[in-house]
Amino acid sequence: MDIYENAIELHKKLKGKIRTELRGDVTPDTLKLFYSPGVGAASNYAKDNAGKLKEVSWTNNLVAVVSDGSAVLGLGDIGPEGAMPVMEGKSMLFKHFADIDSVPIVLNVHTVEEIVATVKAIAPSFGGINLEDIAAPKCFEIEEQLKAELSIPVMHDDQHGTAIVTLAGLLNSMKLKGTKLEDAKIVVVGAGAAGTAIIKLLNTYAKPEILAVDSKGIISENRKDLNQEKKKLLDYTNSANVDGSLEDALKGADIFIGVSSAGLLTQDMVKSMADKPILFALANPEPEILPDEALAAGALVIATGRSDYPNQVNNSLGFPGIFRGALDHGVTKITDDHKIAAAKALAALVKNPTVDKIIPSPFDEGVVEAVASSIT
Amino acid sequence: MDIYENAIELHKKLKGKIRTELRGDVTPDTLKLFYSPGVGAASNYAKDNAGKLKEVSWTNNLVAVVSDGSAVLGLGDIGPEGAMPVMEGKSMLFKHFADIDSVPIVLNVHTVEEIVATVKAIAPSFGGINLEDIAAPKCFEIEEQLKAELSIPVMHDDQHGTAIVTLAGLLNSMKLKGTKLEDAKIVVVGAGAAGTAIIKLLNTYAKPEILAVDSKGIISENRKDLNQEKKKLLDYTNSANVDGSLEDALKGADIFIGVSSAGLLTQDMVKSMADKPILFALANPEPEILPDEALAAGALVIATGRSDYPNQVNNSLGFPGIFRGALDHGVTKITDDHKIAAAKALAALVKNPTVDKIIPSPFDEGVVEAVASSIT
Repeated sequence: MDIYENAIELHKKLKGKIRTELRGDVTPDTLKLFYSPGVGAASNYAKDNAGKLKEVSWTNNLVAVVSDGSAVLGLGDIGPEGAMPVMEGKSMLFKHFADIDSVPIVLNVHTVEEIVATVKAIAPSFGGINLEDIAAPKCFEIEEQLKAELSIPVMHDDQHGTAIVTLAGLLNSMKLKGTKLEDAKIVVVGAGAAGTAIIKLLNTYAKPEILAVDSKGIISENRKDLNQEKKKLLDYTNSANVDGSLEDALKGADIFIGVSSAGLLTQDMVKSMADKPILFALANPEPEILPDEALAAGALVIATGRSDYPNQVNNSLGFPGIFRGALDHGVTKITDDHKIAAAKALAALVKNPTVDKIIPSPFDEGVVEAVASSIT
Repeated sequence: MDIYENAIELHKKLKGKIRTELRGDVTPDTLKLFYSPGVGAASNYAKDNAGKLKEVSWTNNLVAVVSDGSAVLGLGDIGPEGAMPVMEGKSMLFKHFADIDSVPIVLNVHTVEEIVATVKAIAPSFGGINLEDIAAPKCFEIEEQLKAELSIPVMHDDQHGTAIVTLAGLLNSMKLKGTKLEDAKIVVVGAGAAGTAIIKLLNTYAKPEILAVDSKGIISENRKDLNQEKKKLLDYTNSANVDGSLEDALKGADIFIGVSSAGLLTQDMVKSMADKPILFALANPEPEILPDEALAAGALVIATGRSDYPNQVNNSLGFPGIFRGALDHGVTKITDDHKIAAAKALAALVKNPTVDKIIPSPFDEGVVEAVASSIT
């Protein structure tokens, strides 16, 4: 059996990946406290003390994983039913890595207005909102509106989780290269949720020279086909306003960051980059270039999204600790400072970075604790 | 400490009443199956096979307890934060009594349109929807619209749970009295969610003579102050179109069913009823008449919502088995036939009814199984 046959067999056998359990025994005596009439005291306490529901309910440790299924993994727009197994998996990871109770919520609505209205409507039920696998560009406005209007932490993990772990890996890569991120020439390919967030976080952290490339080429002021979000990228990229293809962009570049599609990066392109380039080929499940090819073409470091190669850029390094920290420390907005602190905390977990180990594994000890302690 | 102090201490100590757990161990090897890339097979399976998400996700055993907090227990309109401890308690009861995973969802929206839109939007996340503590009359339209538009079971428990358990108790009470429900003269006091559902279910089951009474008196065609839902009650009640007070309604009645307020029923009123009347004084937490007073005034049977007296009409007798049966048997609409079958199943669990035992306790063995087997 291949991995997909194994996976579906396991899903059918377990009938899902999470379940609920009780925090106390239900007996005739405790029922009077857990439910009517005693529960009325907890209800009045929550009603009369704004923000204190979490002291008497599970919301203190509860994150919703919310998706409309419009941009799921490598699967695309597969709708809420299709998205559910992935979201339930994410809830499983929250529990496993950070002991956070998590509930997958898949939405049968798809516009910015509907998604924002729905999440706002159910928000009092949760202690945090992890947006997941919502297509660009609507994901940007949805997250922005929800962050502005809700008083609990909201994070679109496809954007910021990926950006944080990527920055962590780059910090250690630069140690190996011996140069500074602010002096690097960086090409980011793919201007969706992850690419946009990576560009913004790199700019906030180090203001390096960045070119953003999408399927039509380098994003420049001359392009007439840019949506609002891509136009905004010009604030952070392409200060010289150059035009051209991916090949043009890569000539002499120090760093390639791909969040695009399989096999996009050729060995010739790698050879056209600066000496010993750093490659983050993060397309899933097949990277833009395979590690063996990348190294043969002269790459110093190659990171991918794959667990079967070294240097996996894995979002599980980020979101469990980020929400653990936010919940534990009463943080209601995840800021750029938090993201940078989390990236530094992750990078620091690798005491002696090598080309085969620039980032920790989510299964390493202390990852969640280190990230959580940076979210204050 | 009184029960309320004990309750809040327990809530704070446990930090809630439910949590999530994993159905399998997360390791680097299983992660490839539970999450990317293997999970893609489960996602594609759910996307490509309508209605089969439940085979590969926890939705097969998952009920949302949904409330906007507009009519909570004896507490009234206390909003979503206030409602949460009660809803989390209900989710606890689902798990304890029926091993159903359940998630409390409290809503920060309050109109029929907003509540329907929100529940429809999140519905693919669940295997069933238990509406709870939503004020009348909006609860009627919300439930009706959701039942019509969703393909999973939806039940407003304040209506139908109460009606089912009340009917169960009446069935055994009539055995003690030796007369038939269809020949009884019944007065239902309180024309909100529960009262309306009780009237409709009694009418469907036996078409007895019913008078509905609200705070303004007997509901009749002459009343000018009736909302749409109360007007509809005239289809099932007051065929002689009489007017009058509660006192007038009760003269010669066989059965009193109160879902109204504490102390409403006096001993003199009981004495004005037919010989050996049956009283269901279900106001919470204080009944319309205390059992001792009722019996002293000549009542044959007195049932209340209280666990410290015999004959507790407890919704926990209904909803766990109803949803257990619906989930297990693929039932997508809870019909009147189901409600009557569930009531009969509950009544039959009391082999030899006495005036002190007309209904089982939710802690009795076999309750959930008996009810579930009636929902097919």
